Amino acid sequence: MRKMAVTISLAALAVTTPLQAQETQKTEFPSPNAIVDTAPASEWVTIAPSDLLVMDLAPDAAGEPRRVIIQLMPAPFSQGWIGNIRKLAAAKFWDGTSINRVQDNYVVQWGDAGYDNPESGETEQKALPEDLETVPESEYAIGESSKNDYCGYHVCPLNNSVRINQVLTTSEYGTGSFSAGWPLALQGNQAWPVHCYGAVGVGRNYSPDTGSGAELYTVIGHAPRHLDRNIAVVGRIIEGIEHLSSLPRGKGQLGFYADASKRVPITSIRLGGALDEGTAPAFEYLDTNSEVFAKYADARANRRDPFFIKPAGGADICNIPVPVRRVSGE
Amino acid sequence: MRKMAVTISLAALAVTTPLQAQETQKTEFPSPNAIVDTAPASEWVTIAPSDLLVMDLAPDAAGEPRRVIIQLMPAPFSQGWIGNIRKLAAAKFWDGTSINRVQDNYVVQWGDAGYDNPESGETEQKALPEDLETVPESEYAIGESSKNDYCGYHVCPLNNSVRINQVLTTSEYGTGSFSAGWPLALQGNQAWPVHCYGAVGVGRNYSPDTGSGAELYTVIGHAPRHLDRNIAVVGRIIEGIEHLSSLPRGKGQLGFYADASKRVPITSIRLGGALDEGTAPAFEYLDTNSEVFAKYADARANRRDPFFIKPAGGADICNIPVPVRRVSGE
Repeated sequence: MRKMAVTISLAALAVTTPLQAQETQKTEFPSPNAIVDTAPASEWVTIAPSDLLVMDLAPDAAGEPRRVIIQLMPAPFSQGWIGNIRKLAAAKFWDGTSINRVQDNYVVQWGDAGYDNPESGETEQKALPEDLETVPESEYAIGESSKNDYCGYHVCPLNNSVRINQVLTTSEYGTGSFSAGWPLALQGNQAWPVHCYGAVGVGRNYSPDTGSGAELYTVIGHAPRHLDRNIAVVGRIIEGIEHLSSLPRGKGQLGFYADASKRVPITSIRLGGALDEGTAPAFEYLDTNSEVFAKYADARANRRDPFFIKPAGGADICNIPVPVRRVSGE
Repeated sequence: MRKMAVTISLAALAVTTPLQAQETQKTEFPSPNAIVDTAPASEWVTIAPSDLLVMDLAPDAAGEPRRVIIQLMPAPFSQGWIGNIRKLAAAKFWDGTSINRVQDNYVVQWGDAGYDNPESGETEQKALPEDLETVPESEYAIGESSKNDYCGYHVCPLNNSVRINQVLTTSEYGTGSFSAGWPLALQGNQAWPVHCYGAVGVGRNYSPDTGSGAELYTVIGHAPRHLDRNIAVVGRIIEGIEHLSSLPRGKGQLGFYADASKRVPITSIRLGGALDEGTAPAFEYLDTNSEVFAKYADARANRRDPFFIKPAGGADICNIPVPVRRVSGE
């Protein structure tokens, strides 16, 4: 006999966090997101506007705007490519370029698709700024000879909450770690950024090419960790990824759009600081060295909130996304 | 100075498999997909039509059909729910139901959204078949007292190619393993199916409810392994997932569509054997005990094909998707 579903909304059939009907358990074992909400202002770190890349796509079919916001990584990670990206943004390079590839369970890629010149029969591409750096492959990861140097770069795995170290899994992908709000993998003396969902990376040609930064992509499926250390990660999407992940998949090879008319145009990409005053978005991330983050990470690895029965006992680093939110207005 | 991009097509900027320009390296270190293509017919296992669930959504805005095909798991996994699903399909239960939830980097969920009866003020739901089984939580995983019993169920991790065992990572999520074409996690005496991208599971209410099978979901983001053992996995999408993963994200809580008019209607869900003769799709999967699968898994874990520089040395089980393809016509 089917139970009456009157008092249970559709959301009760959801596979995640509990509803108000479970108040008692919620207090004892709050969900990870509820834990994040308890963090005091002091545990949130403002993201500098200059670390934000603001991408505006052409409006959708209903005329609605589509803005995607990217947070760039801090030093010492991927700085050569990030420096190039800043120059490309300042030069308004991406204005009029497009989304060129959407491959299911893999990436969305964008940049200059080139112009097929019917006279020359060749594909011409937009001129890049002349002062872009050629970045060596050694920059895919940061290596130092001693853990003390790591700490100089604020990558101190042993200084992380012991609880975080206990929940992060170690594998051939490296040991998971968080530093200054970013997920990293560590192995030996090296540290490198990881290809979690929403990570932004630099498209390149075959080695030794490492890409200029003019072609970018983001992950829209299961974390392709085999790309770590093989290609530069420069940041992550912190708002608006749905504008990319919900795009029709390209029907050409590797998800490229065989039909050029299917490429969504990019109106502009600007650094946050270059937007008109008052319009630059303000964001903050949860300090990964904070007490609340440690509790949050533990809760992600051990779900005890009402919906769950059996906590996993650990989590891979991409299953503990670092909380990022808009700074609420006064 | 920008290199001339004339002879390098856009695809060369792709982040995956190499192009024809790299023939020599390709032969020495073929890509995982190229390895799969070398498998002889004897290493492909036909999927019984009765193991296929064929979901037809309403056509898209351009009038194009949208078919999603699901392969159901074999015994002994999740058979209670799968039995219910077969009854629901035979009863055409899902005809006229809808896609109700699309949450970015998480799930797409579908089933009966209910009808808000204005007279009673209550949400009424479709009647379920009367003979559905109530499945206990113990069925989320399969546990046996000895490894011999595992082998009786064709779950013999030690009989897997040693190479596969060497590449699959072990973590709190369990030890990865493949059995009869399915990814599993093993821990102690238990084995359970895993929430990889495209896995299909059974929506439920709070424990002890385990769901009837009437509400189903699939994973469209990073594998939420914390759901393993907490909810039933009954199969995987083997074709057409893009029709779900590219849907607009719901704007309500947890990605539910607050606006009922946004729910994509489901025209029908049928078992493969119930479709008109000659229209049932035919699929096959690569035998996970085969020699080629072992090579493929090793290549997924150690990318040496031309694009790559540094093989990871291992892979998580969701990063080694089991190859499934349509059986080619005569």
